[in-house]
Amino acid sequence: MQSILILNGPNLNLLGQRQPEIYGRTTLDDIREMCTEHAQTLGIEIEFEQSNHEGALIDRIHQSKALHDGIVLNAGAYTHTSWALHDAVASVELPTIELHLSNVHAREPFRHHSCLAPVVIGLICGFGANGYRLAMDAMYSWLEDSA
Amino acid sequence: MQSILILNGPNLNLLGQRQPEIYGRTTLDDIREMCTEHAQTLGIEIEFEQSNHEGALIDRIHQSKALHDGIVLNAGAYTHTSWALHDAVASVELPTIELHLSNVHAREPFRHHSCLAPVVIGLICGFGANGYRLAMDAMYSWLEDSA
Amino acid sequence: MQSILILNGPNLNLLGQRQPEIYGRTTLDDIREMCTEHAQTLGIEIEFEQSNHEGALIDRIHQSKALHDGIVLNAGAYTHTSWALHDAVASVELPTIELHLSNVHAREPFRHHSCLAPVVIGLICGFGANGYRLAMDAMYSWLEDSA
Amino acid sequence: MQSILILNGPNLNLLGQRQPEIYGRTTLDDIREMCTEHAQTLGIEIEFEQSNHEGALIDRIHQSKALHDGIVLNAGAYTHTSWALHDAVASVELPTIELHLSNVHAREPFRHHSCLAPVVIGLICGFGANGYRLAMDAMYSWLEDSA
Amino acid sequence: MQSILILNGPNLNLLGQRQPEIYGRTTLDDIREMCTEHAQTLGIEIEFEQSNHEGALIDRIHQSKALHDGIVLNAGAYTHTSWALHDAVASVELPTIELHLSNVHAREPFRHHSCLAPVVIGLICGFGANGYRLAMDAMYSWLEDSA
Amino acid sequence: MQSILILNGPNLNLLGQRQPEIYGRTTLDDIREMCTEHAQTLGIEIEFEQSNHEGALIDRIHQSKALHDGIVLNAGAYTHTSWALHDAVASVELPTIELHLSNVHAREPFRHHSCLAPVVIGLICGFGANGYRLAMDAMYSWLEDSA
Amino acid sequence: MQSILILNGPNLNLLGQRQPEIYGRTTLDDIREMCTEHAQTLGIEIEFEQSNHEGALIDRIHQSKALHDGIVLNAGAYTHTSWALHDAVASVELPTIELHLSNVHAREPFRHHSCLAPVVIGLICGFGANGYRLAMDAMYSWLEDSA
Amino acid sequence: MQSILILNGPNLNLLGQRQPEIYGRTTLDDIREMCTEHAQTLGIEIEFEQSNHEGALIDRIHQSKALHDGIVLNAGAYTHTSWALHDAVASVELPTIELHLSNVHAREPFRHHSCLAPVVIGLICGFGANGYRLAMDAMYSWLEDSA
Amino acid sequence: MQSILILNGPNLNLLGQRQPEIYGRTTLDDIREMCTEHAQTLGIEIEFEQSNHEGALIDRIHQSKALHDGIVLNAGAYTHTSWALHDAVASVELPTIELHLSNVHAREPFRHHSCLAPVVIGLICGFGANGYRLAMDAMYSWLEDSA
Amino acid sequence: MQSILILNGPNLNLLGQRQPEIYGRTTLDDIREMCTEHAQTLGIEIEFEQSNHEGALIDRIHQSKALHDGIVLNAGAYTHTSWALHDAVASVELPTIELHLSNVHAREPFRHHSCLAPVVIGLICGFGANGYRLAMDAMYSWLEDSA
Amino acid sequence: MQSILILNGPNLNLLGQRQPEIYGRTTLDDIREMCTEHAQTLGIEIEFEQSNHEGALIDRIHQSKALHDGIVLNAGAYTHTSWALHDAVASVELPTIELHLSNVHAREPFRHHSCLAPVVIGLICGFGANGYRLAMDAMYSWLEDSA
Amino acid sequence: MQSILILNGPNLNLLGQRQPEIYGRTTLDDIREMCTEHAQTLGIEIEFEQSNHEGALIDRIHQSKALHDGIVLNAGAYTHTSWALHDAVASVELPTIELHLSNVHAREPFRHHSCLAPVVIGLICGFGANGYRLAMDAMYSWLEDSA
Repeated sequence: MQSILILNGPNLNLLGQRQPEIYGRTTLDDIREMCTEHAQTLGIEIEFEQSNHEGALIDRIHQSKALHDGIVLNAGAYTHTSWALHDAVASVELPTIELHLSNVHAREPFRHHSCLAPVVIGLICGFGANGYRLAMDAMYSWLEDSA
Repeated sequence: MQSILILNGPNLNLLGQRQPEIYGRTTLDDIREMCTEHAQTLGIEIEFEQSNHEGALIDRIHQSKALHDGIVLNAGAYTHTSWALHDAVASVELPTIELHLSNVHAREPFRHHSCLAPVVIGLICGFGANGYRLAMDAMYSWLEDSA
Repeated sequence: MQSILILNGPNLNLLGQRQPEIYGRTTLDDIREMCTEHAQTLGIEIEFEQSNHEGALIDRIHQSKALHDGIVLNAGAYTHTSWALHDAVASVELPTIELHLSNVHAREPFRHHSCLAPVVIGLICGFGANGYRLAMDAMYSWLEDSA
Repeated sequence: MQSILILNGPNLNLLGQRQPEIYGRTTLDDIREMCTEHAQTLGIEIEFEQSNHEGALIDRIHQSKALHDGIVLNAGAYTHTSWALHDAVASVELPTIELHLSNVHAREPFRHHSCLAPVVIGLICGFGANGYRLAMDAMYSWLEDSA
Repeated sequence: MQSILILNGPNLNLLGQRQPEIYGRTTLDDIREMCTEHAQTLGIEIEFEQSNHEGALIDRIHQSKALHDGIVLNAGAYTHTSWALHDAVASVELPTIELHLSNVHAREPFRHHSCLAPVVIGLICGFGANGYRLAMDAMYSWLEDSA
Repeated sequence: MQSILILNGPNLNLLGQRQPEIYGRTTLDDIREMCTEHAQTLGIEIEFEQSNHEGALIDRIHQSKALHDGIVLNAGAYTHTSWALHDAVASVELPTIELHLSNVHAREPFRHHSCLAPVVIGLICGFGANGYRLAMDAMYSWLEDSA
Repeated sequence: MQSILILNGPNLNLLGQRQPEIYGRTTLDDIREMCTEHAQTLGIEIEFEQSNHEGALIDRIHQSKALHDGIVLNAGAYTHTSWALHDAVASVELPTIELHLSNVHAREPFRHHSCLAPVVIGLICGFGANGYRLAMDAMYSWLEDSA
Repeated sequence: MQSILILNGPNLNLLGQRQPEIYGRTTLDDIREMCTEHAQTLGIEIEFEQSNHEGALIDRIHQSKALHDGIVLNAGAYTHTSWALHDAVASVELPTIELHLSNVHAREPFRHHSCLAPVVIGLICGFGANGYRLAMDAMYSWLEDSA
Repeated sequence: MQSILILNGPNLNLLGQRQPEIYGRTTLDDIREMCTEHAQTLGIEIEFEQSNHEGALIDRIHQSKALHDGIVLNAGAYTHTSWALHDAVASVELPTIELHLSNVHAREPFRHHSCLAPVVIGLICGFGANGYRLAMDAMYSWLEDSA
Repeated sequence: MQSILILNGPNLNLLGQRQPEIYGRTTLDDIREMCTEHAQTLGIEIEFEQSNHEGALIDRIHQSKALHDGIVLNAGAYTHTSWALHDAVASVELPTIELHLSNVHAREPFRHHSCLAPVVIGLICGFGANGYRLAMDAMYSWLEDSA
Repeated sequence: MQSILILNGPNLNLLGQRQPEIYGRTTLDDIREMCTEHAQTLGIEIEFEQSNHEGALIDRIHQSKALHDGIVLNAGAYTHTSWALHDAVASVELPTIELHLSNVHAREPFRHHSCLAPVVIGLICGFGANGYRLAMDAMYSWLEDSA
Repeated sequence: MQSILILNGPNLNLLGQRQPEIYGRTTLDDIREMCTEHAQTLGIEIEFEQSNHEGALIDRIHQSKALHDGIVLNAGAYTHTSWALHDAVASVELPTIELHLSNVHAREPFRHHSCLAPVVIGLICGFGANGYRLAMDAMYSWLEDSA
């Protein structure tokens, strides 16, 4: 049975409260629930976590090596600056999908650059909470295809 | 019943023959077929086209305004240079999803910039042929949510 | 009798429908009519065309050499990227005026650069449909002065 | 009755003497006269001034608020460096047209950037003295349309 | 009664010991005391904290939403790199003042750029420990004015 | 008794009339009055001036050497371009505070760079008219501390 | 028997008429004839075409895969902007030589960058019509060597 | 007796597992052991630590002031982005050597810039695990020379 | 008899008082006197002026056309920003020498660029007050040679 | 009888030994021989030299003025940095062809810029040893045409 | 028995006399002696040379191929500009260590870039004369490990 | 008695023959003679040399330390690229004047940057052969003043 880590970075705990004109009114708990349901539909396991600490995200990615088959990573603003996260993803050599709620390429220039891009298999952005479902589908197919 | 235009740009007609280490062995006809099947599953209509001519792509986007509810646009290399396509998408005011087979942000620098990004609702890249299915799902949900 | 080619580039066929807050509600047919009337006032001939195809615009500029005395060129988004249009204008050696409906220099940075600037006699932008009349007047005087 | 301030910046007092291969042989007095005649044709009032002092140009723009309906501004080389003039134009909130005798976008790179562009309604350049007439026409129509 | 969070970032715990020719000999405890006294004078409450952990600063900003009316943020070197802090401040939607002991704009180039600038109401820098008093005064007035 | 020159640059004479959504409705006379009152509270003397002329501002800074103990300088848009003002401040070797009504670092990119920064003791921006009071307090303390 | 496609891009149809001080007085028909003769000398076949349409050039490159052993490509101004042509050349995996009549590296900066460079075997520029003969020789030897 | 802190940053805990083609098969524990042995040879004390948390590294550097005579710092990817680490090293004013296992200047461009460079005494990179021994020797000599 | 205008820009009136470690202790009056004496030696006339006003410097350059044979121009900080001065020098078409007291190319980067360079015959910098004598000699020879 | 100097720069003496995957296995002596033969076929004289010393290459170019009709210059890595070679070629005013064995525009970015480009008649690169023959042919025709 | 070439570039012959505050008082002869002694300790042979001529350094590197097992290269200022040295090192395919006396990354920006970095195994800088010993140790271990 | 080294770099041996429209018709021997005469007038000794070899120029500068009191350095194109020459001048710590025949700042951009600027006392350019006399005068006064 596939197991996917869905890892969320800084400020995503405020989802639903924070700038709803950009991020919508769904909370991170709503998304966790939605992902759990979708996992059941797909017949896979997920773990769903969030931290505002770059180091904690790195630690969690390291641990995933032994526990999961793939990572869906919404690294929030660390996406744009953290080469340490880039190295963490490269180190564990698990297939990783970069995810963003908003269409980051249509926002401020600093959000156009991703440190993760060179080490992820693909990118999904702009579809709000539904993006989590799409990322799970994408990972599911990827793992099936490479099984 | 939703209708989606799936529009493919330059060199995508060579898919399956061209650099299979990057783009895989699936042909554009395989993808068209896969999309048609997936459309039946979703209960929607699609039109699936390809052109190597920037002007023809613009013409086709213009016509879509009267015919479709959304566009999935794999503009190939025109993505990175064509502000005319950007204006075309902005002009018809249909929801548009930017799609790429490969993870363009992990390739040559010229593929990191998208002229379409400011006018699309979201971006999916890196999932090969499966990305078409993901994009159809994403558009389907988007149209449902805004219905 | 002077003859002027008024050549319009990509997406201008959508004028009046497309983003009226930027481009106004006048259609390209309205402008054609307005230009035809103004030509009669000035006692000159005009030809008025539009294409979304860069190659077609180049072809048309080439043909103008034998048919017209000057060109009013609203090249839309090709203005900012097409060195091929730049070369076409340089090749036919007809006086050419660069025209834009909106004040392109007050919009997105990509609209601040013009590939045409080095080969045109002058630039008029920001005056909406009225800009066509101004450009015809400017060309008329220019041709009178150099006659 | 419309009233337009035609304001000329540094070195324009030397017109006719200065680099005639770029700026022609018409003097600023010739242009003033031409503008006065053209104003009579249009049935409007103009004031026509020149200064080499950035501060004096700003003062004059400030005063125009109470005296004029629009400004035609040939700010010479201050166009390319003076954010203070930009702020002055923004402050008085009168419609302003940026004017240059030569096609500045075809000359040295430092002349390609305009500090005024974000706050003017439009730009006319490259038509020599005739540009003043075109700018008056453009302003006349603009004021008519927004009356 | 107004309540202000005064939050200090990396290396500020070393104040007084660290490079006194730049930062002076006052310790962070001296400043805390000075701020507490000044709060009494103003009749407001403050909380005064420091952390070297970016994630801890983000957590603390999130908590402030429920506890404080405004934030005085001396984010140290994170000011120049942390878009995650930028997002945290934007998320909680509390008025925030950016504070620096030294005149960062007169030091190394990397200190000239602030990730916080787009989301703070204002900036005070260069006045050493006294800057905390000025920032408290500025926040006090701002909260009074918008009460 | 301390004496401070409060010097205001281009377009600040229009305060209250100019773009009130950015600069508020307080006039420069209101601010002068507020400053005069605040000076009495502090027991210091001020001189309060404004000019739109870069040269006049430089002349005034030169004269301040013999007349004042410090300068509060709101140089408006000259802040971003005038190395001559930078040299003037460096020449008189009086403590100088850079002041802006708005948070210039959150506005257009051209307002992010200050020619004055390397030669001032500190910067206050974003607090509207209240910033003048803060700057006077900051200068007062600075002069006290270095007395 | 070797077969080479000699493909010419935008504005090359005007050769001989267009800016003879840069491009000489030889027409494209003269060059075609010269190439045909030279092909006979070498004992090879050539096809010689021109289009102003980027899409048509791409189509033609695609077709060459089945018809030719190599391509001599003078892509004119599309050389400097067309990543779509780059992809077309990469897709067909035929040896391709980049050719220019003039020494593009000694002209305007925009002509110094080539989108084709990464996918061609070599470059010949600056030798006018004679460059076609050199390119045919180079291709002939290359094909001989790799036969 | 000299005491040196050997501090390792993000992802170095994965050494030996992570991308062995770049970093080799030696683990961090192997290196710790090797350093302990080398310390005995040199007659010095070392402490050897690792953390993925930027804040924890800063805390540890602060503590080193009272405990150690010098620091050997392999800050991993934080080297390239962390001005906070730069400030931490500057604050404690201990001699510090920047160390990398791989030759970072021969890898991706983002690894060519070091935030630490301005505050370290020297740099050793490219010698794998042996670099730790070299850094210890370098620090040993440096401390001897400045004793 | 040759006549040379020696024109000095902003802050040069403070010479001798201002930052003597850079500019020395000689005052502008000392230099004027030195120049007057040197003019007598050379048998030429000079006029020696200073202004802090860019507009006044431009006015003065314009007047020089009728009065002088050449200009020695120490434009101070306006050198680096004033394209209006550049145009003024170009307009009057008198031989002009750019002069600086200090070696501007060894100071802050903003002093490395000169707007005057393209329109002056030569540059002398770094020789303090003696530079004026050298510039007079250079102009004298230049006028002799072209007489 | 035409005489051509074929001049080779740094590291070309190692040809055949050095990185054969880029430069092939032909030695410089092989090429010299091939060129000598080809010269006989063309009925011209050549001189063939190599040096690793920039100064020696310059000296040799200077001497060529009296001895040769044209230069084929493979300046190796000096191509990308040596403005002194640029000046040498410009000084002797002999037709010069820039030659590279590999397709430099498809290699590291530093090889994309040529200091020689502005002063050579044309460029040939990417054809290995055969490029020398092509360059001789190109020079032969050029000299014939301008004879 | 291992043999190492220790090669020193421009201005290193002045060591001890030149800017001792940066480079110390040790002369190059002192270092040669120190290296000779250290070689005896390690049981290896060294050759120690210096030249101010880029071409001579290239020649020397070429010769090393037949004579030595590795190179320690302190290329002085040629490090930052000489792609020819880069090519020389790449050509001989001997392990090479880049060495600098001072911490070049903490000095002027032009010293932060190394043309040698892509072709050396590692870099040691900032340890003065002791760096030679460290580089010899590093090379010794590298050769042992790859023996 | 003062002794000055006048050192000339690459291509200056061709003076009088090389591009006379830029450099004039005076030969280097003419200049040497002129300098010798001028030295007699000043009562000083000169040595006058030229080389096309960067290494030879460095060697010569090193030797000057023991032989001369100052250097007049016309380094030709090495001015713009040679940090090794920069280091040589810095090493010998003799007053050095940078000299160019032409006004390099009005020519190609690559001639606007000088590697020598940070280590010379001043710069003279644009005065042709007469510049040598001016530089000798400048050095003479400088040495007198610092005697």
